[in-house]
Amino acid sequence: MDPERLRGLLEAVREGRVAPEAALETLAQAPFVQTANGRIDVHRALRQGLPEVIYGAAKTAAQIVEAMRALAAHGQPALATRVPADVAERVRAVLPECEYVADARLLCFGSPAAARTDLGSVLVVCAGTADLPVAREAHEVARRFGNKVELLADVGVAGLHRLLASLELLRAARVVIAVAGMEGALPSVVAGLVAAPVIAVPTSVGYGASFGGVSALLAMLNSCAPNVAVVNIDNGFSAAALATLINRT
Amino acid sequence: MDPERLRGLLEAVREGRVAPEAALETLAQAPFVQTANGRIDVHRALRQGLPEVIYGAAKTAAQIVEAMRALAAHGQPALATRVPADVAERVRAVLPECEYVADARLLCFGSPAAARTDLGSVLVVCAGTADLPVAREAHEVARRFGNKVELLADVGVAGLHRLLASLELLRAARVVIAVAGMEGALPSVVAGLVAAPVIAVPTSVGYGASFGGVSALLAMLNSCAPNVAVVNIDNGFSAAALATLINRT
Amino acid sequence: MDPERLRGLLEAVREGRVAPEAALETLAQAPFVQTANGRIDVHRALRQGLPEVIYGAAKTAAQIVEAMRALAAHGQPALATRVPADVAERVRAVLPECEYVADARLLCFGSPAAARTDLGSVLVVCAGTADLPVAREAHEVARRFGNKVELLADVGVAGLHRLLASLELLRAARVVIAVAGMEGALPSVVAGLVAAPVIAVPTSVGYGASFGGVSALLAMLNSCAPNVAVVNIDNGFSAAALATLINRT
Amino acid sequence: MDPERLRGLLEAVREGRVAPEAALETLAQAPFVQTANGRIDVHRALRQGLPEVIYGAAKTAAQIVEAMRALAAHGQPALATRVPADVAERVRAVLPECEYVADARLLCFGSPAAARTDLGSVLVVCAGTADLPVAREAHEVARRFGNKVELLADVGVAGLHRLLASLELLRAARVVIAVAGMEGALPSVVAGLVAAPVIAVPTSVGYGASFGGVSALLAMLNSCAPNVAVVNIDNGFSAAALATLINRT
Amino acid sequence: MDPERLRGLLEAVREGRVAPEAALETLAQAPFVQTANGRIDVHRALRQGLPEVIYGAAKTAAQIVEAMRALAAHGQPALATRVPADVAERVRAVLPECEYVADARLLCFGSPAAARTDLGSVLVVCAGTADLPVAREAHEVARRFGNKVELLADVGVAGLHRLLASLELLRAARVVIAVAGMEGALPSVVAGLVAAPVIAVPTSVGYGASFGGVSALLAMLNSCAPNVAVVNIDNGFSAAALATLINRT
Amino acid sequence: MDPERLRGLLEAVREGRVAPEAALETLAQAPFVQTANGRIDVHRALRQGLPEVIYGAAKTAAQIVEAMRALAAHGQPALATRVPADVAERVRAVLPECEYVADARLLCFGSPAAARTDLGSVLVVCAGTADLPVAREAHEVARRFGNKVELLADVGVAGLHRLLASLELLRAARVVIAVAGMEGALPSVVAGLVAAPVIAVPTSVGYGASFGGVSALLAMLNSCAPNVAVVNIDNGFSAAALATLINRT
Amino acid sequence: MDPERLRGLLEAVREGRVAPEAALETLAQAPFVQTANGRIDVHRALRQGLPEVIYGAAKTAAQIVEAMRALAAHGQPALATRVPADVAERVRAVLPECEYVADARLLCFGSPAAARTDLGSVLVVCAGTADLPVAREAHEVARRFGNKVELLADVGVAGLHRLLASLELLRAARVVIAVAGMEGALPSVVAGLVAAPVIAVPTSVGYGASFGGVSALLAMLNSCAPNVAVVNIDNGFSAAALATLINRT
Amino acid sequence: MDPERLRGLLEAVREGRVAPEAALETLAQAPFVQTANGRIDVHRALRQGLPEVIYGAAKTAAQIVEAMRALAAHGQPALATRVPADVAERVRAVLPECEYVADARLLCFGSPAAARTDLGSVLVVCAGTADLPVAREAHEVARRFGNKVELLADVGVAGLHRLLASLELLRAARVVIAVAGMEGALPSVVAGLVAAPVIAVPTSVGYGASFGGVSALLAMLNSCAPNVAVVNIDNGFSAAALATLINRT
Repeated sequence: MDPERLRGLLEAVREGRVAPEAALETLAQAPFVQTANGRIDVHRALRQGLPEVIYGAAKTAAQIVEAMRALAAHGQPALATRVPADVAERVRAVLPECEYVADARLLCFGSPAAARTDLGSVLVVCAGTADLPVAREAHEVARRFGNKVELLADVGVAGLHRLLASLELLRAARVVIAVAGMEGALPSVVAGLVAAPVIAVPTSVGYGASFGGVSALLAMLNSCAPNVAVVNIDNGFSAAALATLINRT
Repeated sequence: MDPERLRGLLEAVREGRVAPEAALETLAQAPFVQTANGRIDVHRALRQGLPEVIYGAAKTAAQIVEAMRALAAHGQPALATRVPADVAERVRAVLPECEYVADARLLCFGSPAAARTDLGSVLVVCAGTADLPVAREAHEVARRFGNKVELLADVGVAGLHRLLASLELLRAARVVIAVAGMEGALPSVVAGLVAAPVIAVPTSVGYGASFGGVSALLAMLNSCAPNVAVVNIDNGFSAAALATLINRT
Repeated sequence: MDPERLRGLLEAVREGRVAPEAALETLAQAPFVQTANGRIDVHRALRQGLPEVIYGAAKTAAQIVEAMRALAAHGQPALATRVPADVAERVRAVLPECEYVADARLLCFGSPAAARTDLGSVLVVCAGTADLPVAREAHEVARRFGNKVELLADVGVAGLHRLLASLELLRAARVVIAVAGMEGALPSVVAGLVAAPVIAVPTSVGYGASFGGVSALLAMLNSCAPNVAVVNIDNGFSAAALATLINRT
Repeated sequence: MDPERLRGLLEAVREGRVAPEAALETLAQAPFVQTANGRIDVHRALRQGLPEVIYGAAKTAAQIVEAMRALAAHGQPALATRVPADVAERVRAVLPECEYVADARLLCFGSPAAARTDLGSVLVVCAGTADLPVAREAHEVARRFGNKVELLADVGVAGLHRLLASLELLRAARVVIAVAGMEGALPSVVAGLVAAPVIAVPTSVGYGASFGGVSALLAMLNSCAPNVAVVNIDNGFSAAALATLINRT
Repeated sequence: MDPERLRGLLEAVREGRVAPEAALETLAQAPFVQTANGRIDVHRALRQGLPEVIYGAAKTAAQIVEAMRALAAHGQPALATRVPADVAERVRAVLPECEYVADARLLCFGSPAAARTDLGSVLVVCAGTADLPVAREAHEVARRFGNKVELLADVGVAGLHRLLASLELLRAARVVIAVAGMEGALPSVVAGLVAAPVIAVPTSVGYGASFGGVSALLAMLNSCAPNVAVVNIDNGFSAAALATLINRT
Repeated sequence: MDPERLRGLLEAVREGRVAPEAALETLAQAPFVQTANGRIDVHRALRQGLPEVIYGAAKTAAQIVEAMRALAAHGQPALATRVPADVAERVRAVLPECEYVADARLLCFGSPAAARTDLGSVLVVCAGTADLPVAREAHEVARRFGNKVELLADVGVAGLHRLLASLELLRAARVVIAVAGMEGALPSVVAGLVAAPVIAVPTSVGYGASFGGVSALLAMLNSCAPNVAVVNIDNGFSAAALATLINRT
Repeated sequence: MDPERLRGLLEAVREGRVAPEAALETLAQAPFVQTANGRIDVHRALRQGLPEVIYGAAKTAAQIVEAMRALAAHGQPALATRVPADVAERVRAVLPECEYVADARLLCFGSPAAARTDLGSVLVVCAGTADLPVAREAHEVARRFGNKVELLADVGVAGLHRLLASLELLRAARVVIAVAGMEGALPSVVAGLVAAPVIAVPTSVGYGASFGGVSALLAMLNSCAPNVAVVNIDNGFSAAALATLINRT
Repeated sequence: MDPERLRGLLEAVREGRVAPEAALETLAQAPFVQTANGRIDVHRALRQGLPEVIYGAAKTAAQIVEAMRALAAHGQPALATRVPADVAERVRAVLPECEYVADARLLCFGSPAAARTDLGSVLVVCAGTADLPVAREAHEVARRFGNKVELLADVGVAGLHRLLASLELLRAARVVIAVAGMEGALPSVVAGLVAAPVIAVPTSVGYGASFGGVSALLAMLNSCAPNVAVVNIDNGFSAAALATLINRT
């Protein structure tokens, strides 16, 4: 798929170093490992700059163990998101070197990347304490992907002074991740105060007509500030991955 | 229906001053006037403190004229909302004493009530210039119902300084009407700054996923501020009527 | 944020009584208390006329205890809404002076405000017995915020005589809170009978196409009566807070 | 399909009066007439007690003419609903004996059925003047199908006295058709006052969050009165057809 | 409210037999009984022809007992719908003369009305066995309200012969109640085969895009047959109540 | 219903071999078996080419046993879908010859059809491991209906190389079943690579704004590839049934 | 992309007949033609068995002309769907050899494929005359793609006899395309009568709660018949393309 | 609001150089210009790094002229989005130095920023020619904001080779803007091929169940690739603004 590797391979074929059939096989099968339950993409760190991360919500402990081992065997750090505490326990019974970050529901294998000192910082802000699990997922993932990260919690728009009190922190960030449920107004207000891109994460916090985060999601999509983009409801992980790519030069 | 009037009527029946059949008829038919096209509620000003107002959007000029005449014949000021300019022209050809307030789409018959000096003020704030027609409807109706009213436009949340520059005006109001489309965050932010009740009016301004005002409506219903209540999309009139009732002692 | 306080502070800076850095710090940090889990807004009673209230639905007992203590330490009454019975028990094990009002799911710390005799009364009406928890939340919060309050239950529109039998009570209220699920018609009918503002609270009561309160919510937003505004589904608390602000002169 | 006719046909086959092939053909093709554009069901009056009615909204004048002629050729009265004025003109240019009832958008061929004196009456009530086109469709169709019909307009729930003034009329009806837009509360209130079945017709009248009649539709489906059933938005015709079948002994 | 009773009462006032205050009180309070938890409408059988029925889904055993006793004390049969088995057990521990019809989730107090021989029959048809609980609710309620009732189950439209095999039963009914989930096509097909009114009951049976009965509900509202009206999802009770009123002469 | 059988029957009537009444009865009752709980369609294999399959999700073990026995008694293989493990256990306690395929939630009675060697193959592809239960239902049902089937898992579109590595398998299929949740893009991508019809099955896998599969469903319906058709969310069974009919010559 | 071609190319490289750079270029650029406005896929007929078809709804006449010429230049027949009459006229002014099939909104260049006599037939059925434009699109496209096609119109489920009269035609089809708006029940009923796959096409025909075809779409997705799959609202073209692929051996 | 400026101002007050009242006024009013119709934010370029842009969709020519002049008077380039051609003509009659970019609906005043050679490039990809207006808006705005930009059109996922042919271009971008309607799969596929952040822009292109872009929007929010964030439907402008901020070091 990758033109550079393809060109190299074609050269090798031309020079007779590689047989066409072998080249064909190489082309098609290289970048993943077939396990019993899936095709683990062990080259994503090379291709995309982000390691493959296991979406843990719908997986059994056994499936998570299998995937983590496949990643570890290729020298990649392994990270599983949305892992419930009981599943985490069962994985750790098999892989005791895993660390479980309970409030962020993350299961981690291997050391986090060292924070690169040449990069800017990522700031995670969240509207209320109920939004903390999602904010913490973003915070922890961003940290493990090598960013300097700060978390600023409980700065909802109905008490603006709490947000404005941290204006310097806001303005120092290279990227802001703004997490909010209910009316989802925080990203719009934050985006008007900074010159950085703002990644908005709606949460399912709220009741009645919050519709599990849809109201916040719609508010964020309709932001009158031009520097706001939105990820899925409660998806702190994608926000962190995206912030990492933005934060790199 | 009104116990006081019923009691008086029953007394009259008991004293032989009114026959039972007449009483029955009186009870059932008094408070409206049957016209060709409807039953005009000419006593609403007495019963509710607000005159009957004609919803002009779905009516012909002839229907509006008929309703206005019925109200005027009972000494009531007449007001029609959502009147398109061409319909207004046709009404004014018949009732030239009508005034048409074009930017608020209001057709008015009779003088507005004098602003009562013993009442607080109503403040209408709106997020963008595109919200002005709805804000002006609220503004003009509140004025004609006898309130002191101020209008503060173009103070959307992505440029907070524009709003904060008018903090004194905000805090002086007895009631605030907050009009916004797009992400509908203005009422939440305003409500955190004032001790007054805030009536939120979502507008159909926006594009894409604003869904004709639904996104703003949902945001407002989910406000994390406790002093916000919401009326229908683009319904500046109801906001003004409600503000009038709140503004009275 | 508050211009009056800002002006005073600036005077003090000019007179040399306050250093600029101190003034800056004061400006930014005064009105909240940073706890482990959040920023408690201990000045809201001053700023907004309503004490900060803890939204208890998504909080642990420990988080509620922490927030209550921060409020109490600043001399504020503390109130937590949507507290499940088991969480309330755990809070009361730590703070036995708390009172738990089970049918309204309220956890209260400190005495309620005395009913101000110079204010009008708040009337809570609800359509069916299934709406009672929400109506009781509104009722109890309004009482604790210092209002005279009445509760009129089981007066749904399919048996109008039950509502009309209490017409005098309806007409005596300064504000009406109308709570209903299913078709949500009660606020429209009530609003036609009174000259007071009506705050409509849709409830999630109903089945099938009630969609957890959405049908009632839509009906209330579309009320043909002009004196109706709506809060979120099941949000008795906001209705009470708003009624309190309206009820004050 | 009809067992009685099938039995007769089978008898005829057994007695040799009809050949099997002819019987088969009869069975399959009898009850409709194939035209260029459709299969007109000319026997529906026999089978269902209601004549076939042409849904005129999406048809050309030529298609309506063709269908009307097919019905007329079989001795049936022909009725087309939702016919715009300009299409009606073009049909009447070809079939001048057609009558066009403009406010109900009905195009009629042949005399209406005489009102049967042995039947009860159908009452059409509607909330506002904007609901009149739908109410008139119900009214006019019910009349042409042989019912005694009354129309009571402008009796919305925010002015209950207008409705209660006609309580006798309401209680005299064998079936009530209740037509309303906006919050759609009228059928619930009416149904609590009568012992008759109530057919609720939501209309697309309203603005903002009325969503073209969806809010009224949902309110009606969630009626707390047990004697309400609902037809499609703006579907006055079906309400009238159903009322006709109910009104028959 | 009732003009006839009002006239009699006014006569009594005129003749001095009743004092005006007493009359007023009578007017307002007669038709319900105030209990601890609600206002039981004990005169509904007189006013509407259907006894008050207790919606059991959201009530405690104690509330059901209280309401049943209030009804029984006024000589009315008492019926509670949507009663879960465990709640029913607790009610029967207090009121052992209650009968619980488990598959229809009905709790009944007092004998059902005898089937009136002068009335037509009600036919309940349902598409699949999964729809049976709703169909049985309709069936059992209709029977207890004095109708002859038949139940025809498992006649979904993807096996038309199963329905057509019962054509005579279909055509003999005065009213048909058609119960279906999934695509909700049964009422349209049935309505094309009979001359009776068809009450359609969507059920929440189905998965994926059935959306808890919404798909079936929409299909029924859009029926191309004119003799279909719809009640709420899973609402077998209302269908039976309505069928009872239709079935009476 | 079937014209050929009807013609034969009519011949028999004409020749006196069958009495009309008997013919009528035959016509109406033949193709199903009335059990206590339903009408089992035992001739569907003849009529439709697919055996009747029991939808097990909403059925008790007893109902499944009854239906399986009715099918088995007519020589048909019996298959129940969506059977939870505990229900399966209870059925197997009565019918121990049943096989339970746990990961596909299928309960099977009788041997699967032998794979017909004259037919093409069915390929089931799925995007992630979380989609496997639905993919396995499709896979197992297709196998038991006599198709050659392959299953290709974990080939989501964000790692295209995993899909392209199996291009030969994709292009060899007579029909492709593409199973995906989240953004539902797999069928579009697959459909652009093959000349076969693609049956898209959205799954309820995802979180936040996946809305239980609605997002995937909508994406699939809007596919820019012309060779995609869609079945209900999570409905692997229908996809397999449809693929079977397509796969036959 | 295609392994066979890739293998050939690699062989050529190995043998020195093709330089690696040339091979790379060939791989990436072969199967489309870059025009001013797009990348026309001129090899789709080879790759997918269906020619590239131009979606004409959102294109100017000039864009359609450009795309048609690019296709024609590669010897492919060109077909544009959803072409409004005025746009068609403008295209035909430039390419007079184009044929415009007005009722199907198709613009065709080149002769249709001859119907292959070795294939089965495609049957298009539609519920009402208002569904004809969509049905005709399916009909005409299927014909031009080389299928034997029949069209059976106006066979809605509320008059089942009209459908059953054509049972032989239904049962003779290799594939059925069932087109319906309103309640969308036709595909379910048809699917129960045939052993062929049924492609359901919802149409936007209907009013009120048909929601532009959503009700029909949902009904079709929830079909209780297993042999139904669904395409987008009004998408007769995809149904025909899919039927073509199914119809081939 | 800005702490740095606030500190400077406080210093000036302390030193007596600025009077407190003047300071207060400065704080509140500086950063916008009050015009007849709004408050133009003329300092946004300083504060946010992006100039204020006029949302032209809902504005008259006069309002656009007024806003452009206010911006130009402060030395800012002025840009209006979503300007219809006729409005643009009227603006250019007054401000002939404006340039109108018709296919992007942009009205521009002043020269675009020179492309900064030290920055990466922005790549705009779009799925079909119908998505071009939105893609061009993003393209043109990004160019005028000083980015190197490329536009790659007509690379929808159903013909993957067209996209893969431009893999080098994709991989060279610092940010990718992916524009697509219909099933909205393009951003997911692109995001799997690059290591850059991907901003997804759903368009309202499509028909039937595309719901004006909602289907594409949902697909994009549910992307299984972690490096995708989404802006509002058709909002090419925000995507470009965001890409500009990301593209800066």
